[in-house]
Amino acid sequence: MSLDPLDVPIARDPELCTKLRARLRADDFVGFVVPHSDANQSEYLPPSAERLARLTGFGGSAGLAIVMQDEAAIFVDGRYTLQVRDEVDATVFAPQPIATVKPEEWLRTRLKPGDRLAYDPWLHTPGQLEPYAQVCADTQSHLVAVAENPIDALWPDRPAPPSSPLVVLDTPFAPLTSKAKRALVGADLQKAGVDAAVISAGDSIAWLFNIRANDVPFTPLVLAYALINADGTAKLFIDDARVDAATRAHLGPDVEIVASDRLSDVLDALGRDKKAVRIATRATPAWIVERVTKAGARILPGDDPCQLPKAKKTPAEIDGIKRAHKRDGAALVRFLAWLSVEGPKGGVTELSAAAKLDGQRAANEHFRGLSFPTISGSGPNGAIVHYRVSEQSDRALRSGELYLVDSGAQYLDGTTDVTRTVAIGKPTAEMRDRFTRVLKGHIAISSQTFPRGTRGQELDVLARRALWEAGIDYDHGTGHGVGTYLGVHEGPQGISKRGQGPELAAGMVLSNEPGYYKEGAFGIRIENLIYVRDIPAPRGAEREMLGFEPLTLAPIDRTLIDADLLTPSERAWINAYHARVFAELSALVDGETHVWLAAATAPLL
Amino acid sequence: MSLDPLDVPIARDPELCTKLRARLRADDFVGFVVPHSDANQSEYLPPSAERLARLTGFGGSAGLAIVMQDEAAIFVDGRYTLQVRDEVDATVFAPQPIATVKPEEWLRTRLKPGDRLAYDPWLHTPGQLEPYAQVCADTQSHLVAVAENPIDALWPDRPAPPSSPLVVLDTPFAPLTSKAKRALVGADLQKAGVDAAVISAGDSIAWLFNIRANDVPFTPLVLAYALINADGTAKLFIDDARVDAATRAHLGPDVEIVASDRLSDVLDALGRDKKAVRIATRATPAWIVERVTKAGARILPGDDPCQLPKAKKTPAEIDGIKRAHKRDGAALVRFLAWLSVEGPKGGVTELSAAAKLDGQRAANEHFRGLSFPTISGSGPNGAIVHYRVSEQSDRALRSGELYLVDSGAQYLDGTTDVTRTVAIGKPTAEMRDRFTRVLKGHIAISSQTFPRGTRGQELDVLARRALWEAGIDYDHGTGHGVGTYLGVHEGPQGISKRGQGPELAAGMVLSNEPGYYKEGAFGIRIENLIYVRDIPAPRGAEREMLGFEPLTLAPIDRTLIDADLLTPSERAWINAYHARVFAELSALVDGETHVWLAAATAPLL
Repeated sequence: MSLDPLDVPIARDPELCTKLRARLRADDFVGFVVPHSDANQSEYLPPSAERLARLTGFGGSAGLAIVMQDEAAIFVDGRYTLQVRDEVDATVFAPQPIATVKPEEWLRTRLKPGDRLAYDPWLHTPGQLEPYAQVCADTQSHLVAVAENPIDALWPDRPAPPSSPLVVLDTPFAPLTSKAKRALVGADLQKAGVDAAVISAGDSIAWLFNIRANDVPFTPLVLAYALINADGTAKLFIDDARVDAATRAHLGPDVEIVASDRLSDVLDALGRDKKAVRIATRATPAWIVERVTKAGARILPGDDPCQLPKAKKTPAEIDGIKRAHKRDGAALVRFLAWLSVEGPKGGVTELSAAAKLDGQRAANEHFRGLSFPTISGSGPNGAIVHYRVSEQSDRALRSGELYLVDSGAQYLDGTTDVTRTVAIGKPTAEMRDRFTRVLKGHIAISSQTFPRGTRGQELDVLARRALWEAGIDYDHGTGHGVGTYLGVHEGPQGISKRGQGPELAAGMVLSNEPGYYKEGAFGIRIENLIYVRDIPAPRGAEREMLGFEPLTLAPIDRTLIDADLLTPSERAWINAYHARVFAELSALVDGETHVWLAAATAPLL
Repeated sequence: MSLDPLDVPIARDPELCTKLRARLRADDFVGFVVPHSDANQSEYLPPSAERLARLTGFGGSAGLAIVMQDEAAIFVDGRYTLQVRDEVDATVFAPQPIATVKPEEWLRTRLKPGDRLAYDPWLHTPGQLEPYAQVCADTQSHLVAVAENPIDALWPDRPAPPSSPLVVLDTPFAPLTSKAKRALVGADLQKAGVDAAVISAGDSIAWLFNIRANDVPFTPLVLAYALINADGTAKLFIDDARVDAATRAHLGPDVEIVASDRLSDVLDALGRDKKAVRIATRATPAWIVERVTKAGARILPGDDPCQLPKAKKTPAEIDGIKRAHKRDGAALVRFLAWLSVEGPKGGVTELSAAAKLDGQRAANEHFRGLSFPTISGSGPNGAIVHYRVSEQSDRALRSGELYLVDSGAQYLDGTTDVTRTVAIGKPTAEMRDRFTRVLKGHIAISSQTFPRGTRGQELDVLARRALWEAGIDYDHGTGHGVGTYLGVHEGPQGISKRGQGPELAAGMVLSNEPGYYKEGAFGIRIENLIYVRDIPAPRGAEREMLGFEPLTLAPIDRTLIDADLLTPSERAWINAYHARVFAELSALVDGETHVWLAAATAPLL
C-alpha cells in the first residue's frame, strides 16, 4: 500500500489563515512555510502535527502550504491534483503542481529585499531548507526560524502531542535484545570514528530499544529522541510519565531516561566535549542539526545507524513474519471466499467489504490493529491509487467490474500489506489482458535472481516490461520496505526507478506491487510482501546470488489470468505459488472456505 | 569502448616526487593532491596535463595521487588494480583501492592542526573539493589553492598547452548552424532566468560554435572557455593565433574572440553587473566558480546548457551518422573476412590485426582518425576490459581462442565505436554459452521499447539477466553516450546502473555493450551504437513510446551463437539485424569479402 492516512481527521479552521497572517504581521514576517511533517520527520503524523490539514483542509500524505500576507498556495504532487481541489478552498490556497512549480521558485518572485520568511525548524531537515535559504539569499530576504510554531497558539483544541505509554516488545517477538542491537550499532559507529549518534526516527527508536507506543495511527512508532554512544550505552529523551517500571527494567542500566526538555542541554554537552556526532542530516530536524553545530561538536553526516540493521531481518524475525503472514493470509482467504459468493449479488459495498475483511483480521492472534486503512475500491474507484473509501464515495461492488483491496495488519510478530484484485462476475478481455501483464511484472520481480551488490532500483523495470509492450505503465514505485511490527513503509530498501537505495541484502522485506489503472474504469494491483534470501549458486557461478521468496499467502484471481500470455516458466511460478498457498493455509480454513481455496489455488490448465 | 587513452605516453620522472616535496616544503605545504584531470575537466587530457603520469608513471584514465612529505599514495579503481602495480613504483606511491580507501579518509589520519594541504584549483570541481575541505575542517588543517601548479615548474620538457588551429565544421557535417544552436541555448537560459552561462567543456564549445581542433588525441575537442548570453551572443576565450580568417568569418559578428588571459576580467565584470550566471558546478574548475562568486555575480547552478541539445542529434545528424556507420561497417567487414582466413593460420598477432583494421578505416572517405586506440585482445588478453596492446603484451591469435576487437573512428559525419568478439577456429561449449548470454543481453537492450520519461539506468538490468541466470556478470556499464565527430564518450545519457542520467530522448546515441570476462581465459563483448527514436504506439497505448535502432553494421559471429538458448523473438532479431547488415553493406564489398559477408549474415537455422 502507498497511503499514509490521517486517521483522525483534523477539522479545518476556515479562520486560521486570517489569524495566522495577523500573527505573522505582528512578528514582522511576510510569510510562513507549512509542510506536512512532524518533529520526527515521520511519514505518519500524530494528530497534533496535522497543521497543514488544520490550516487548509488538505488530508493527503504529502503537501506544503506557503502563507504570504496577500496570497497563499498549496503545493501537491500528481497523486493529489484532484483531492486538493475537493478539500481545499482554492480562493484562499491556490493549488500548485509541485512537479513544475517549486515552492522556492514561487517565492522567488514574491520575496523582496529585507523580507523575513518564517519556518519552524523542527519540521524541516537542513536539506529541505536549502532551496529556501538560496532563494532568500538571491532575493536579499531572510529565512528566520520561529521559536514556537504560530499555528499551535491559534489552535485552541489542538490534540496533545504524543504521550502514549511505552510497551515492551520482548522475546519471542523481538528475537534480538536491545542490548545486542545497541552493541551492533555502537560497533558500527566506532568503526566510522563516531562517538555518538542522534536518533530522531520513531521506528529506529522502537527497534533499537525493543519498545512500541501508540503515538501515531496504524504504526507503533515511538516519537521521541535518543542518543546512542559508540559503547552501546544510550539516552532516551522521553517524558517520565510514559515509562512504567517494567519498561524501565527492560531498558536496563545502560539506557538513561532523560526528560525531553533536557535534549538541548545534552546536545550542548556534545559540543563542549568536542564529540564526533553522527546525524542523519537528511532525516533530522534542522533545529537539532543547528543546535549540535552551534554547540561545537563535529558533525559527521551519514545515515541513521539503525536503518540498515533494522531492515535486515534476522532469521528468527523472518520466522515470526512468516507466522504472521499465515494468519493474515487465512483471514484474507476467508474474506475472498465470502466475497466470491456475496460480491456478484450486489449487496456488498466498498465499506461493508472493508469492514468484513478488517473483522477477519481483528480476530487473529497477536493482532494489534490495521497497518493502514483498508483501500477498498470497486470499478472506477480502484483506479484511484490512493483511494480511501468514505460514506460519500462508497459504492456497491457490481458484476462485470473489478474490485481492488489493499490491506494489512500489525501483529506482534510482523506487519502485513497485501493487494488482491478480483473480478466480480465475468471480467472483460481487456481486464484479463491488463491483469495478466501486471501479473507478469509481479512474477518477473518475484522470480528474479541477482548478484550481491544489486540495488532494488535496478530491478524496477522488470515489473513494467509486459505493460510497456502494450504502451501502458503505472505511476508509482514497485516496492517499498516493510518493518516488523513497525512501519508498513520502511526505508531504506525499495524497488523504484527513482532514488538510490542500498544494496539488497538477505533478510530485507519489500513489497512487490506493480499495477495498472484505467481512469474512470478499473484499477489493478497485485501485491505480495517478499524477502531477500541467499540462493544456491548455479554451476559455474562466479557471484554470490540472492533471490526473493514471497511472504504473502493468498490466491491470485485465476479468472483474471489469460494463461496464453504467460510463458511456461511464468505458468510454473503461479502454479507453484498457489500450491504453496494451499499447503500453508488449508489447515487454517474449513467448510466452504476450504473448498473455495482448493479451487482458487488449482493449477492453471 | 571504455578506454581513455594516453596516446603520447608521458615519460615518468623518477626524481619528480622528491623535487615536488622540496618545493612544497619551501611553500609550507604538507602535501599536494594530483588528480588525473585538466583545466576543462576533459575525459581525454592534452599531454601538457598528464601530470599524474609524469609524477607516477600511471597511464590509466582515472586516478589520483597525494604526495605528503614522508609518504605518498595513488588511488585507482578496480579496473586499474593490476595496471597500477605494473606502472607505478609502489615503494614511492602506495596503491590504494579507491572503492574502500577514499583519499580524504586516507588524509584524515595524516593531517594535523595547522597543516596546509595544496591543490590546483583548475583541476578540481567545487564538488570534488568538498571532501577535502571537510577533512581539513575536521582536522583543523587548511586546504589551500596554489596559483601555479608546482609540477609544471619541475617539468622542463612539458608539452605546450593545447594550441592547435581551429577548424570550421560546416554543412553538410554540421546541419544546424552555430547561430541556430546559440539561439536555442540562449532561449533555454532566458527561460531559466539566466543572463549568461560559462562553458568550459571542450565538446560543448566544439558543438556550440561548429568548430573542431586537435587539442587532445582521438577527439576533436576545443579546449577553451566560452560565455554564452541569453540573447545568443557569445565570447570565445582562445588565443588569437588559433583563429584564422575563415574561422573568424564563420563565427560571425555575434561571437567575440577574447584572449584567454582576459577570462578573469570578463568574469569579474559579470559580478560588477550583478548578472545571474549559470555554471555547471559539477563540471567546471573551482577556480572559475570561485572567481565568479567572489566577483559578486549570482550563480545559478545547473547543467552545461549545451549538453542536452548536443546529445539529441537532429534527423539530419542521424542521417550523417548512419552514412559514417556504413563506411565504418564495410571497413570492419573487410577486416573480419580477412581475419576469418588468416586468423586460424597462426600468423596474425594482436598488433598486426589492429594495424590491418586501422588501415581499412583510414582508407574511408571523411576519415579523420581513430576515435580511440583499437583494443585488440586475444585469449586471456580479451578478458582485460581496458586492454591496450603493446609490443610487450602482443600475442598471436590462436585457434580455439576468442579474439575481442573494440574499435572506432572519427569521420566528419559521425563517430563510431564497435566491439566484435570472434572465434578463431572452433570455440568451446562454454564460450558459446557465455557469448550467447551476452548476446541475449545485447538484444534485450536493443529491442526494448519504453515510455517517454525513462532513463537509461532503468534499462541496464536487461543486459545482465541472462548472465545472472548463470551466476555471472560484468563490472562495467552497459552503454555510454556518443558524440557526432566528437567524444566517443559523451554525457549526459547512458545505460548504467549507477548515476542518474537524463530521460532518454529521440536522437540520443548510445553504445550497447554487455560483456563477460573470464580472467586468464577469454573476454566477450558485443557492442553496437544505437539511437533513440519514436516508435509507433501499439493499439490501446496510453504512453508515447520510444525504442532503439542499431547504427552499427557488422556481423555477430554466428559460430559463437548457441541458437538453442535463444527465444524465437531473439532469433528473429539476430536474423533481421544480419539481413539489414547484408542489405546495407553488400554493395560496398566485393569478391571474397562479399561471399564471406553473405555467409556471416545468413539466417540462423
